Amino acid sequence: MSHHSNANTSSKKPESELIADWAHLLKVFLRPEDSESHGTLVKYMEQILFGLHDFLRKHVGITEAKSLKELSERFTDTIIKENPEKKLADVITCVIDEIAPQAVNVASPYFVGHMTSAIPFFMVHLKTIVAALNQNVVKLETSKVVSIIEKQVIAKIHRMIYENSESFYQTHVQNTETTLGAFVEGGTSANLTAFWVARNARFAPKEGFDGVEIDGMAAAYKAYGVDRSVILASRLGHYSLRKAAGILGIGNKNIIPIDTDANNKLDVHALRQKIHEIESGPEKTCILAVVGIAGATETGTIDPLEEMAEICREHGIHFHVDAAWGGPTLFSNSYGHLLNGIKRADSVTIDGHKQFYMPMSCGMVYFKNPVIMDVIAYYAHYVNRRGSVDLGIKSLSGSREANSLILDSALKIMGTKGYELLIDHGIETAAAFAEEISQRENFQLITSPELNILTYRLCPPEFHQRIESRDPQTLQAANEELNSLNRNLQRLQREAGWSFVSRTTLKINQNDPNCIVVLRAVIMNPISTIKILKDILDEQEEIYRHQLAHKFSSPD
Amino acid sequence: MSHHSNANTSSKKPESELIADWAHLLKVFLRPEDSESHGTLVKYMEQILFGLHDFLRKHVGITEAKSLKELSERFTDTIIKENPEKKLADVITCVIDEIAPQAVNVASPYFVGHMTSAIPFFMVHLKTIVAALNQNVVKLETSKVVSIIEKQVIAKIHRMIYENSESFYQTHVQNTETTLGAFVEGGTSANLTAFWVARNARFAPKEGFDGVEIDGMAAAYKAYGVDRSVILASRLGHYSLRKAAGILGIGNKNIIPIDTDANNKLDVHALRQKIHEIESGPEKTCILAVVGIAGATETGTIDPLEEMAEICREHGIHFHVDAAWGGPTLFSNSYGHLLNGIKRADSVTIDGHKQFYMPMSCGMVYFKNPVIMDVIAYYAHYVNRRGSVDLGIKSLSGSREANSLILDSALKIMGTKGYELLIDHGIETAAAFAEEISQRENFQLITSPELNILTYRLCPPEFHQRIESRDPQTLQAANEELNSLNRNLQRLQREAGWSFVSRTTLKINQNDPNCIVVLRAVIMNPISTIKILKDILDEQEEIYRHQLAHKFSSPD
Repeated sequence: MSHHSNANTSSKKPESELIADWAHLLKVFLRPEDSESHGTLVKYMEQILFGLHDFLRKHVGITEAKSLKELSERFTDTIIKENPEKKLADVITCVIDEIAPQAVNVASPYFVGHMTSAIPFFMVHLKTIVAALNQNVVKLETSKVVSIIEKQVIAKIHRMIYENSESFYQTHVQNTETTLGAFVEGGTSANLTAFWVARNARFAPKEGFDGVEIDGMAAAYKAYGVDRSVILASRLGHYSLRKAAGILGIGNKNIIPIDTDANNKLDVHALRQKIHEIESGPEKTCILAVVGIAGATETGTIDPLEEMAEICREHGIHFHVDAAWGGPTLFSNSYGHLLNGIKRADSVTIDGHKQFYMPMSCGMVYFKNPVIMDVIAYYAHYVNRRGSVDLGIKSLSGSREANSLILDSALKIMGTKGYELLIDHGIETAAAFAEEISQRENFQLITSPELNILTYRLCPPEFHQRIESRDPQTLQAANEELNSLNRNLQRLQREAGWSFVSRTTLKINQNDPNCIVVLRAVIMNPISTIKILKDILDEQEEIYRHQLAHKFSSPD
Repeated sequence: MSHHSNANTSSKKPESELIADWAHLLKVFLRPEDSESHGTLVKYMEQILFGLHDFLRKHVGITEAKSLKELSERFTDTIIKENPEKKLADVITCVIDEIAPQAVNVASPYFVGHMTSAIPFFMVHLKTIVAALNQNVVKLETSKVVSIIEKQVIAKIHRMIYENSESFYQTHVQNTETTLGAFVEGGTSANLTAFWVARNARFAPKEGFDGVEIDGMAAAYKAYGVDRSVILASRLGHYSLRKAAGILGIGNKNIIPIDTDANNKLDVHALRQKIHEIESGPEKTCILAVVGIAGATETGTIDPLEEMAEICREHGIHFHVDAAWGGPTLFSNSYGHLLNGIKRADSVTIDGHKQFYMPMSCGMVYFKNPVIMDVIAYYAHYVNRRGSVDLGIKSLSGSREANSLILDSALKIMGTKGYELLIDHGIETAAAFAEEISQRENFQLITSPELNILTYRLCPPEFHQRIESRDPQTLQAANEELNSLNRNLQRLQREAGWSFVSRTTLKINQNDPNCIVVLRAVIMNPISTIKILKDILDEQEEIYRHQLAHKFSSPD
């Protein structure tokens, strides 16, 4: 930014006068340099903290684009200047006047493409307090009561999932020997932690072997006479499952994709068959875990958790549920039942920054068994001593911010009912959106929403006959044209800057190995109404008519 | 908190009137419920944002204690209430009036025990803006210019470490094919990422083997004819090194501790010897990495990086430098040379929340080779497509907050000179503190500060003769008494609530396997002056005289 000074944001003082000396440093450490700086900061902080959504609407582009190339060219200076480049207030002004407009207004009700959306304004207040207190929850000595509160909020969410007895929670809520779960960076870390625990529990110490954590994977396989270990998950599983298996030394090819049924739910018959195949196969293969998805990233669908739990029980397999997205559906009296079976999971991933509407980034992982996390415990001389409350003992992370304090406060402000309203709104609006898509001849609904995510594609009438064709070549040709059409549509709409849906590719026919390009909508913003979703479809039809239709001749 | 209502904080409205309905929800999503709420929030936000350090001094306990037991008993309610428990302003008031006083004022200049300290007030403003924008830097579509800025700030820090040419940085700063480093959650994730890359680069795909990331560790060992892989690090290495090796399937016993010299620096002779021993040993052992520490957690010391780099070059071993603590020393003209050799590292860990004075939590990892991170790349259909700018492609994390924006702004506000002043202050104040400790007969300086960390212990005159004894039993008995004395001293001082040093255990004699308990001071707060450090010693002497001396009889 430094080499693009701008009349709005350049310092009133010439920059050459900014010199870092001890007096200036102490000043900038403690408070604004002068009343002018103070005034500027007050103005912006007032706007952000008390008019967040107006502020975002006014200052942040939805998706509109200076081209990436143009933007990139502005940010190529890689030298850190010796003296301050700008006064604090000017840096903040620059962030707001120059950077924010080129960021993405994920809070717009027209931004329905990803799992990142509007957050309640008070979340920003809570994050501000957490930053100000700057507690480090790796250890009690730098967090004190905040560690205690974290244990409590973990127990609250555990209870929401597992619904154990009051006496269970009285035993464990503040127990320094047991652990019901952990805050982590995000869903990836949560899934990684779950597999890490499952791996270590499976390859536990025994005669002549100190356990996989100490001796490593190769030694574990030798000690247990295993050739390979695998994790079974729906082919719609998040890519973080593969990443976690890669990191843990399991190998990401050993995330075995299980087919889904016509509703995009894991096919339990296929799961049973695969387990049988592995257990009776020639290789000595160990099934480390089965993963059920509660809210698939691409389709929002929920696997048959109850049946999967039963299969895992029969075979003694660790059952993990990736509820990063769908977890808070449990708040809903109307839809909570969709997650039936989750309480039988050995471990559960939930993201705070998704449907708990917390700011980036906050993940959580929960365990049914309050001592299973012992298999990942680490101690050190200067912290995390045995028997201490230090939360860093059983944690992927070391130093870590106190996001638990945000969730704890949010639960008090919202109540389960507040979250239920958000969840129900998303699910019901998505259903209405699906209905609307089905009624428009220019669109094809690809995956109906079970929760608040659906996929569809532009599929104008001139394609209808061809995509019904039984001739594979005709069908494939039509799909290829539609793929190109939808890729362009999504890009043009994004570049127009008014609204945003995402795109992905899906296999829609079990027997057809080809994937098709689809548009994906995620409805989580409480002000994304059906009216707005219709606007988005209208705009897509406009773009098709004026910018795309002429390029696609119908051979019919 | 809910079952402990308090006159200060209970709602003016009875709580039973708080009902979550759609109107209330939209309100609480968008702005304060009423002018009273608004007024309360304005008051607190004003205090936090414009009087941070006064606020912390007034509202947050340094270390003083309601007992842990007492605190724990207050946080045992594990049911999330259906309706809001409190109005937003009351929740915030409760956080500030009831929780903050029982948190830890890490910003106090008397809190010199850990690597968590005061942060400049503007960091809280920056964090507030980042939370408000709620960008997700996993992908361009939810972050746009912020991803571009992240690439730029990564290049800036890379340049600070590696000092490559302008043309190198012009080639890579905004290159979507190459990666100079990554933001991660903290030092643990950074070390993990470095080892992950080293592991995957070492066990790369070859004929009949798809690489360790895909095929797993056991298959990698088979493909490469390896029995074991190890990582060599000073015995003062952070425990996250062991954790990372455990997670990665290497096995944490394979972090091989190398002895240190009298100055707590890795003994290069011992390193050479160990490498020789491994390379000529009967097992087929692969050395995955050697770790140099730049700022050991317990002693602040820096390993001989230049010599270690040379040894690694000779043997073709990945050289990782854990500069989580010491990295920003490079800003100092006077002391930057202490890190000589760091630019020869294949990978470097630096923490933002340590000596960059950023809020919890922000880690970074840097790589000399701009394409080496390719070995950990992951793609997905809906994001992180090949060739895109999406930062999530080569990253331990998935969704992630835009901490890079904070660092970028901080560098502009501080300049290298601002950081240099902080670094120099810490190092010079620690030196003065060491001098003071040496001059007091009640104390023994254990490890002199190379940077801004030192250790010492209470060692009153009556012990002086015994700890000089050549008789192992006399010495051990004296040390055991001193251990108990120092453990109690540290606890009593912490509980008194005025100041805080931490404690750890150190092996101070190569030939003596026993560790001794030491007090550890970390001087990073610019307002922790030598005067304050003397106060802390005075208080320790007071505590000894009045509360401890009578318990420890001198047998001399």
